[in-house]
Amino acid sequence: METSVLKFGGTSVGDFDKIRDIAGELQLRVSRGEKLIVVVSAMGGTTDELLRNASSLSHAPKEDHVALLLTTGEQQTISYLSIVLEDLGVRTKAMTGYQAGIRTFGGHMKSRIADIDQDRLKAVLKTHDIIVIAGFQGINDDLEVTTLGRGGSDTTAVAIAARCSMPCEIYTDVDGVYATDPRVYSEAHRIYEITYDEMMEMSALGAGVLETRCIEIAKNHAIPLYLGRTLSEEKGTWIMQDTQVLEKKAVTGAALDDDIIHVTLYEPQRESTLIFDLFEKFEQHDVNIDMISQVVNSEGFQLSFTVKGTDSHRLEQIFEAVGHMHPEMVLDARTGRSKVSIIGSGMRDMTGVASKAFMALQTSGIPFYQTTTSEISISYVVDSENDRQAVEVLASAFGL
Amino acid sequence: METSVLKFGGTSVGDFDKIRDIAGELQLRVSRGEKLIVVVSAMGGTTDELLRNASSLSHAPKEDHVALLLTTGEQQTISYLSIVLEDLGVRTKAMTGYQAGIRTFGGHMKSRIADIDQDRLKAVLKTHDIIVIAGFQGINDDLEVTTLGRGGSDTTAVAIAARCSMPCEIYTDVDGVYATDPRVYSEAHRIYEITYDEMMEMSALGAGVLETRCIEIAKNHAIPLYLGRTLSEEKGTWIMQDTQVLEKKAVTGAALDDDIIHVTLYEPQRESTLIFDLFEKFEQHDVNIDMISQVVNSEGFQLSFTVKGTDSHRLEQIFEAVGHMHPEMVLDARTGRSKVSIIGSGMRDMTGVASKAFMALQTSGIPFYQTTTSEISISYVVDSENDRQAVEVLASAFGL
Repeated sequence: METSVLKFGGTSVGDFDKIRDIAGELQLRVSRGEKLIVVVSAMGGTTDELLRNASSLSHAPKEDHVALLLTTGEQQTISYLSIVLEDLGVRTKAMTGYQAGIRTFGGHMKSRIADIDQDRLKAVLKTHDIIVIAGFQGINDDLEVTTLGRGGSDTTAVAIAARCSMPCEIYTDVDGVYATDPRVYSEAHRIYEITYDEMMEMSALGAGVLETRCIEIAKNHAIPLYLGRTLSEEKGTWIMQDTQVLEKKAVTGAALDDDIIHVTLYEPQRESTLIFDLFEKFEQHDVNIDMISQVVNSEGFQLSFTVKGTDSHRLEQIFEAVGHMHPEMVLDARTGRSKVSIIGSGMRDMTGVASKAFMALQTSGIPFYQTTTSEISISYVVDSENDRQAVEVLASAFGL
Repeated sequence: METSVLKFGGTSVGDFDKIRDIAGELQLRVSRGEKLIVVVSAMGGTTDELLRNASSLSHAPKEDHVALLLTTGEQQTISYLSIVLEDLGVRTKAMTGYQAGIRTFGGHMKSRIADIDQDRLKAVLKTHDIIVIAGFQGINDDLEVTTLGRGGSDTTAVAIAARCSMPCEIYTDVDGVYATDPRVYSEAHRIYEITYDEMMEMSALGAGVLETRCIEIAKNHAIPLYLGRTLSEEKGTWIMQDTQVLEKKAVTGAALDDDIIHVTLYEPQRESTLIFDLFEKFEQHDVNIDMISQVVNSEGFQLSFTVKGTDSHRLEQIFEAVGHMHPEMVLDARTGRSKVSIIGSGMRDMTGVASKAFMALQTSGIPFYQTTTSEISISYVVDSENDRQAVEVLASAFGL
């Protein structure tokens, strides 16, 4: 019996008509002999409304109470979808996070999944056609309800698929993964197959279709992951270990992060504790740094990196603290810059990608201030006023 | 440490202002050194809205899915109340039915409580001031969410009080128990103390303040039960084993049920299977019968009883079926009749109550068609057009 895990987000179950449409599609698949585990989010807008209510009752509502409140949203969706499915003659079991045995650890609002009761799921599938599971939620060892934080319902679906060794289909309001954001580069191609590694780089580099943790779980358990538009005939994207494409392109996609702060620090000592002191502060303030380049030469020590634009306030605090310890430090922190990246697992085997990208940018007269490379990606810091042009130039150079 | 179980119904937690008011009152009691277990219903109107949604999705939504849906209402209330309490500095733990270990058996929509995890509740009370528990819900042995049916949240509160040996206070939108319904007899006295047995008769006879099952649990575990108005200075009613009143009245209260069907059946055989066939059908159709009087004389077999007015459709089906089996049966079923009852545990020891009541009714010229008595109550069937007058006459005769 073919069994898959499907996930529908909040927009896809935004009203009762949409829930009916999805139920019809699920019934069709059941009638073709499939069994399904369906993970759903809260109906669009519900979570925000519940959060507003919580904020109206307290300036700092406690996380365990808020988590308990938010999870009612998904519980209502699974009830509604199950009522409709059953009405269509589909034998349906609805399950909240704790009923599916989704055990979590960590904070109430950003828990991680420790385990899932696969035996229970498989037993229920023997007597039911579909299990509808509330996404985004679980239960910790103290029997407290928890939520999984950003991208939580996707994580629920992928984790269940991983635990039960089933493929996972994530339905959302995009057609799939594009070689670069169609809003940035209108001629962007859709990618029908992409490797886990490429997809992880794309996600990490700002192509925000799927949280990196989801792809990581899928990769670790070799679960094929599909991303497509809800109830669409359009073919979406399969994310897998190795794509079936015979002639691989060197570059599969391009990504843009247009809200970064680009920092360069200089200290005229060759031997310095600056990097140690700085990284300790970054860790204390929970700020991620990216694109790190470091040089020591006869004149001193130089460090460049980027941080997210949203961390600017915390960055100021860090620099104030570190400045006291390193009075000779020269700081240059610039906003108005963007990170443009190209990604492709083909880079591993093919030479000339870096030089082709450099040439393309230079030829079009776009200045870039820093470059870093990973095994399957190259990133450039450019002025934000040029960032879309940079994506276009690179996308066009590599035929994305 | 004094610990009580308190219950607030849907009207009492009908909006966020009311939830804040209740939280303030609870904080006050905690500041005086109390610990509390607080059971709450869904915010007024929520359950009806969820039921309407379910009905809009299916003509016959499956009970397990509906139960799962409805319980989100109470879960939201416990989250909101806990957020406010915590904001006031009260250490609060919110618990759904399954988190409080409320194990149930029976149908999904009218479950009965099998057990409650008192060890967990008592452990949590060591580190918290208040536990807020979702009423009306539990979990069965298949880990399915269930609801307790009518008066469910009251039952949750009383059952927790019984299991943990604590007094139970039920707050609602009435001032307490009245000797008879103030809407029927405007001079009715409030009763400040009443025995379990009297209260059970009052409930069973139509004084619908508390479900009989709640009083039964309280009686079986000797839990003092208080009934009063939410946030009111007015003294309500304590329901207990023995009242402290020295000179007991023979009659404590009067009750009126103004929607009954009064049935008389006659069959000209002395030996008949009529009563057997009839009661079997009543059981099959889940119709309760009340005030049964049966006579066999030389002319045949006669049976009188009452059923609730809401069962009229099922009653017709029963009579049609039984009529086929007993063609000589003569049926007389009358609507427009009411049941008037007087209740008092003092009846046990005092004589003359029945005759005084008969006299009072006869003197005022109110015809009555049937009378039944229990150990602590007497009920009369009267015409509905006279029912309020009958209550007044009886209430006045016994000084209620």
